[in-house]
Amino acid sequence: MANKDTGKKKISESTIRRLSLYYRALSLLEKENYETIASKELAKREKLTPAQVRKDLSFFGSFGTRGLGYPVTELKHRIAKILGIDRIWNIAMVGVGNIGSALVSYKEFQRQGFSIKLIFDNDQRKIGSNHKGLIVSDIKDMPRLLREHNIQMVVLAVPAIVAQYIIDDVVAAGIKAILNFAPINLQVPDDVYLRNENMSMELEYLSFVISNHYKPKN
Amino acid sequence: MANKDTGKKKISESTIRRLSLYYRALSLLEKENYETIASKELAKREKLTPAQVRKDLSFFGSFGTRGLGYPVTELKHRIAKILGIDRIWNIAMVGVGNIGSALVSYKEFQRQGFSIKLIFDNDQRKIGSNHKGLIVSDIKDMPRLLREHNIQMVVLAVPAIVAQYIIDDVVAAGIKAILNFAPINLQVPDDVYLRNENMSMELEYLSFVISNHYKPKN
Repeated sequence: MANKDTGKKKISESTIRRLSLYYRALSLLEKENYETIASKELAKREKLTPAQVRKDLSFFGSFGTRGLGYPVTELKHRIAKILGIDRIWNIAMVGVGNIGSALVSYKEFQRQGFSIKLIFDNDQRKIGSNHKGLIVSDIKDMPRLLREHNIQMVVLAVPAIVAQYIIDDVVAAGIKAILNFAPINLQVPDDVYLRNENMSMELEYLSFVISNHYKPKN
Repeated sequence: MANKDTGKKKISESTIRRLSLYYRALSLLEKENYETIASKELAKREKLTPAQVRKDLSFFGSFGTRGLGYPVTELKHRIAKILGIDRIWNIAMVGVGNIGSALVSYKEFQRQGFSIKLIFDNDQRKIGSNHKGLIVSDIKDMPRLLREHNIQMVVLAVPAIVAQYIIDDVVAAGIKAILNFAPINLQVPDDVYLRNENMSMELEYLSFVISNHYKPKN
């Protein structure tokens, strides 16, 4: 069903990103008691063209009424379904340093159905301690615990030097989706999806841009 | 000089990203007392092909000796220069919630020359308080303080609903490079460079991928 809706493999990464933004805008509109929203208004809120919004939302088939716009709640639910966020995902956080620890306390994750169920570290001083309501588990027990708790996504916030070693264990435990914060290229099998995110590297990119008066596409 | 080195506008975003990774690898190699490194070995460490590494490093002109490889320290310095990280950047953090607060305490930034000089919030309970050695300033004083402290980059970690309003002030203060964590599309003039980063949206992307058995390029 979802495959049919998304036209599988045809949605670009930037479209998915915009769906995430529309989802947020629609959630807000719902709170403001809007029943319908015109593509023009949604476009204005997201600093996009109305044509772009209509094109993105055409993935959902014929939808919205000329003159009336899109029904807010229904559109929100349809986008949630496409994004797979109409359910709860069980997440494990590996590494409880500055970044890992901040992410654990980031309430937005929980609100959006990304439920951090397990947290791991290799530091004996942290293992067994309570961290925002979760007990830090020993990373040695990770493969077993990931399976036992039916974890579907892993967030990796460990030092670069151990990241490949740890991701190999994560993959061996059957995890197919990983968000990596370590500043290193990691290797995963073809059927595992890995996203990399690193704040220092983002700042280095900005540094490059302003040092070289380089004009990339915004 | 740097413009000449980088061949301006010819370096792709993925090349810049790899330069950041090489820089990290070379810093590590330096600590391990390596004097030279072969493209093959650097490639292996970064899970890339030797041809890719040689191509990336060819931006630096003729460099490295066949059989001996690249001189580690010199290559590291050249990459630092290209990335603009052979200097200190003055950064301001706007918003001291979970994410902003974690970033302030993230020591890697400071080590890499990204020096957080100012932090701002609009919460009266936070203003004036000490946060990891920095006093939280009132966001109302931001335009003046950004100029007075010669801030060159701003990290925005504020709620989506106020983000455009705040970024307008940041831009008016003459800032040309902004890293935004709010999950919203923001508008900036053409001469300002904006990077967006949002962990929830990354998780939503993973959710989309595994919900739809979608196979994007890794």
